[in-house]
Amino acid sequence: MSESSEAASGGVWTRRRFFEQLMAVGGVSLAMAGMDALGFGFASAQTAPPSMPGGAKGTKVVILGAGLAGLTSAYELIKAGYSVQVLEARGFAGGRAQTARKGFEDTDLMGHRQVCEFDEGQYINIGPWRIPYHHQSTLHYVKEFKVPVELFNNDNDASYVYFEKGKGPLAGKPIRKGQIAADARGYTAELMAKVASKGDLDAALSPADRETFLAYLVNEGRLSRSDLSYKGTDGRGFDILPGAGVDPGPGKESPPFAFADVLNSRAWRVLSSVAGWDQQRTMFEPVGGMDMIPKGFVKALPPDAITYNASVERIMQNAKGVKVAYTDAAGKKVEVSGDYLICTIPLSVLKNIQMDASKPFIEAMNGVSYSAVNKIGLQMKTRFWEEKHWIYGGHVYNDIPGIGTISLPSTGWHSQKGVLLGYYAFGGEAAKISALSPADRAKFAVAQGQKIFPEYAENFETAFSKSWHLDGFNLGGWAEWGDEGRKTAYPVLCEPDGRIYLAGEHLSYLTGWQAGAIESAWQQIGKLHARVQQA
Amino acid sequence: MSESSEAASGGVWTRRRFFEQLMAVGGVSLAMAGMDALGFGFASAQTAPPSMPGGAKGTKVVILGAGLAGLTSAYELIKAGYSVQVLEARGFAGGRAQTARKGFEDTDLMGHRQVCEFDEGQYINIGPWRIPYHHQSTLHYVKEFKVPVELFNNDNDASYVYFEKGKGPLAGKPIRKGQIAADARGYTAELMAKVASKGDLDAALSPADRETFLAYLVNEGRLSRSDLSYKGTDGRGFDILPGAGVDPGPGKESPPFAFADVLNSRAWRVLSSVAGWDQQRTMFEPVGGMDMIPKGFVKALPPDAITYNASVERIMQNAKGVKVAYTDAAGKKVEVSGDYLICTIPLSVLKNIQMDASKPFIEAMNGVSYSAVNKIGLQMKTRFWEEKHWIYGGHVYNDIPGIGTISLPSTGWHSQKGVLLGYYAFGGEAAKISALSPADRAKFAVAQGQKIFPEYAENFETAFSKSWHLDGFNLGGWAEWGDEGRKTAYPVLCEPDGRIYLAGEHLSYLTGWQAGAIESAWQQIGKLHARVQQA
Repeated sequence: MSESSEAASGGVWTRRRFFEQLMAVGGVSLAMAGMDALGFGFASAQTAPPSMPGGAKGTKVVILGAGLAGLTSAYELIKAGYSVQVLEARGFAGGRAQTARKGFEDTDLMGHRQVCEFDEGQYINIGPWRIPYHHQSTLHYVKEFKVPVELFNNDNDASYVYFEKGKGPLAGKPIRKGQIAADARGYTAELMAKVASKGDLDAALSPADRETFLAYLVNEGRLSRSDLSYKGTDGRGFDILPGAGVDPGPGKESPPFAFADVLNSRAWRVLSSVAGWDQQRTMFEPVGGMDMIPKGFVKALPPDAITYNASVERIMQNAKGVKVAYTDAAGKKVEVSGDYLICTIPLSVLKNIQMDASKPFIEAMNGVSYSAVNKIGLQMKTRFWEEKHWIYGGHVYNDIPGIGTISLPSTGWHSQKGVLLGYYAFGGEAAKISALSPADRAKFAVAQGQKIFPEYAENFETAFSKSWHLDGFNLGGWAEWGDEGRKTAYPVLCEPDGRIYLAGEHLSYLTGWQAGAIESAWQQIGKLHARVQQA
Repeated sequence: MSESSEAASGGVWTRRRFFEQLMAVGGVSLAMAGMDALGFGFASAQTAPPSMPGGAKGTKVVILGAGLAGLTSAYELIKAGYSVQVLEARGFAGGRAQTARKGFEDTDLMGHRQVCEFDEGQYINIGPWRIPYHHQSTLHYVKEFKVPVELFNNDNDASYVYFEKGKGPLAGKPIRKGQIAADARGYTAELMAKVASKGDLDAALSPADRETFLAYLVNEGRLSRSDLSYKGTDGRGFDILPGAGVDPGPGKESPPFAFADVLNSRAWRVLSSVAGWDQQRTMFEPVGGMDMIPKGFVKALPPDAITYNASVERIMQNAKGVKVAYTDAAGKKVEVSGDYLICTIPLSVLKNIQMDASKPFIEAMNGVSYSAVNKIGLQMKTRFWEEKHWIYGGHVYNDIPGIGTISLPSTGWHSQKGVLLGYYAFGGEAAKISALSPADRAKFAVAQGQKIFPEYAENFETAFSKSWHLDGFNLGGWAEWGDEGRKTAYPVLCEPDGRIYLAGEHLSYLTGWQAGAIESAWQQIGKLHARVQQA
């Protein structure tokens, strides 16, 4: 790359201007990260745990929660020489990183108990389920624990979109996403090209740029070069596929939908110039289930590092240390003490636990809300979406209330059965469905999915559903910060209160992602360690 | 799906009109396939081998070539009861479906002999390397032989585009594809939205459609709702990634490139409303190498079905049968005879072999050309494209002469080493590079790749290159038909000449794909079997 080429541009920032801007915004550390960014486009302050040299000076840290934030804290602190005790309310580690497979149990706050009855080898990730390639913190531990990963198909043009609230002939019909992409972009490019070729954009584009713009539009919209019209494209699919010989020979391309029909269907909602940052290709998933990551941590920790079934009742601190009172598996009251505390309990739950902390700190916990989140895995006796519809993974975007996204598995290609995600829904509609019994939730999911796949009901075997807002250890899927909360409450909770450090996805801008939990933990143990070194 | 909804549309064909059209074009069989298509968008005449009931009536078929077409023919004919003998010129089966791994040997027509020195477990598919999800014929055998497959990352927004022949500050710089997509589409949507909001499209769109169109443009281009401007989007990446706490906190989105710079870079050539049909997501590859598919065939065939190292010298036929003269591994002249012949030898090679066939048949072989195709695998001692650049698979599109596509492996995530595809180039530039010695080809590939990845040269260990036009058994990568050839020569070669049937990718509209070879074989053995039944 040429050192001077960027500076020569009027529109693109010069290197110098870019650094000046960075310095103004975030000081030297951001500017340093920016230097990386200039090279290749991305940079991250946190792709690896903090270096913690200098020893632990005999410090003991109590950690509440064995989710990703707690596990990360425990693993790195032990490595740095600390004495660590983790208290976990559940009978297993991983927090929300749960995989439901045969025998997995769950009882929600309404008393609905489920035991997973999937076949051996079948599973659904009822918590986090995908890892974007830029979540290098999560991938750091994937590598550290040699967790095999496979590609997660997060964007499949062959998958359906289904919008029943749209209008016109395409509403309420499963349509391939690629057909909507081809037609919406094709017709738009045609309109644009015709405007541009008439010279109507001369104020915006120089004549030379206009010619290049037209070339781009022809390429992007797959327009006819001669008359700049969109007449369809092989990319939207075939009514008769091309093949051998003279029949089917070249096949028969599918004709485009009418532009007005595409617009009225509102199926274009699934289109975007580029996917949102956290939904981008490439995406990974651990082979065998997301809980392979927490299992990697647990294997790497000393056998007695985590005390399970420990229900925290009170968090205490004074100038010299911290103390936590909890009830153990047998119902016995126990106290543990340490020099510092890292608390990864979700704020939704933590705010109901008595804690010695300053009033602003306690009050800040009310600055966030937690989302209602539903998921359901449906075991199907055949992989009809692959066999009949040729959809290999990816999502079926739709506007069916309470369904949100239907998602097809990115694993087990060509095997007999599969577990698909029957709904992934948030908010009020999710809360409504979660009030049903597990059997009725499955009934609902199957009936709705049937609108899209005629083979749905006849293939359904067994379901496992999860409602995170009905999980007493979480009371919601993830933290949702409003602008005001981010401004006032969030910075308060990011700093320690006395000897108590909070960590978790809720203290990051990657809420709902494992990377948020890990990077928050890295940040807090880094601060704690610096304090120990200075003490 | 509603039966009547499509008929209600003015712009979309009614079912009836659609069928009428199909009947006119292709008769009942196409109309039948079209009925499938109307349900879900795609249909194929050939997703499974022809049913061949009725027995083989003691018929013996000689098959020339143990590539995908020959293997398919042999496997299905044996299943249907035929006696089969396959003659293969190479010492192994698979034809072009070759995987270079440690010890693999290749000597080209210029006398350049290579022995692959990749580490154990490393490989490159020097022939076909990917299977689109709609190549159900290829996937049929993947399933039949239980060949494990994994996703092939054929479209990676995080990968670079590199166009050194463009103009302006972005030319000759690696740029993330997603940034070009966001900016080109974003600015275009802005221009379009501003035109539309001024009412300039009233001839093309009704007022209601215009409002919906604006909503689409805002969504697609990620425009500001208030002033319809494109100011960048998180989807194009960050200069400072979002993370935990308040620093980096929300991070810092990267600013968009200037529109004129994007246009002048010509990097938008990689953008298309939807990928071309044969390049679409989802794409697969066999775990461990493409030759796992031919190996599956060979394992399923009787041990003596294939005679290797058989160099065909003459193909004879008369009214009663066929006879093939070949030279065996020891240089001895041998003749085999049978009732029918299926010849899968590429036309580029076949036209130099003496064959008893009609003059029009022989002449038709001149109606096709074969492309020069180069590939090179470069073993790198670290996976720097993943570790330093966060590019996990996908292609680096570029305009470097002789390089074509650079492609990063979709397998071995997080392992130590990797083999990337250093060039995949066609035509004259490929021919020029293939004239170099293997060592000089590698030198060229490494020097060019270095323009994009600064870690290229220091990581390079060993290479294996293939030039298909310099392979005496192929004389080119695949058949390339012009319009005239398709019209006149192609139909002649699709029909048998006497007792000789040709098969292979060259007799399909899927040239260069394994699916073309398989479907061509299916078609020809289907015809042959029908003839045997009628005889």
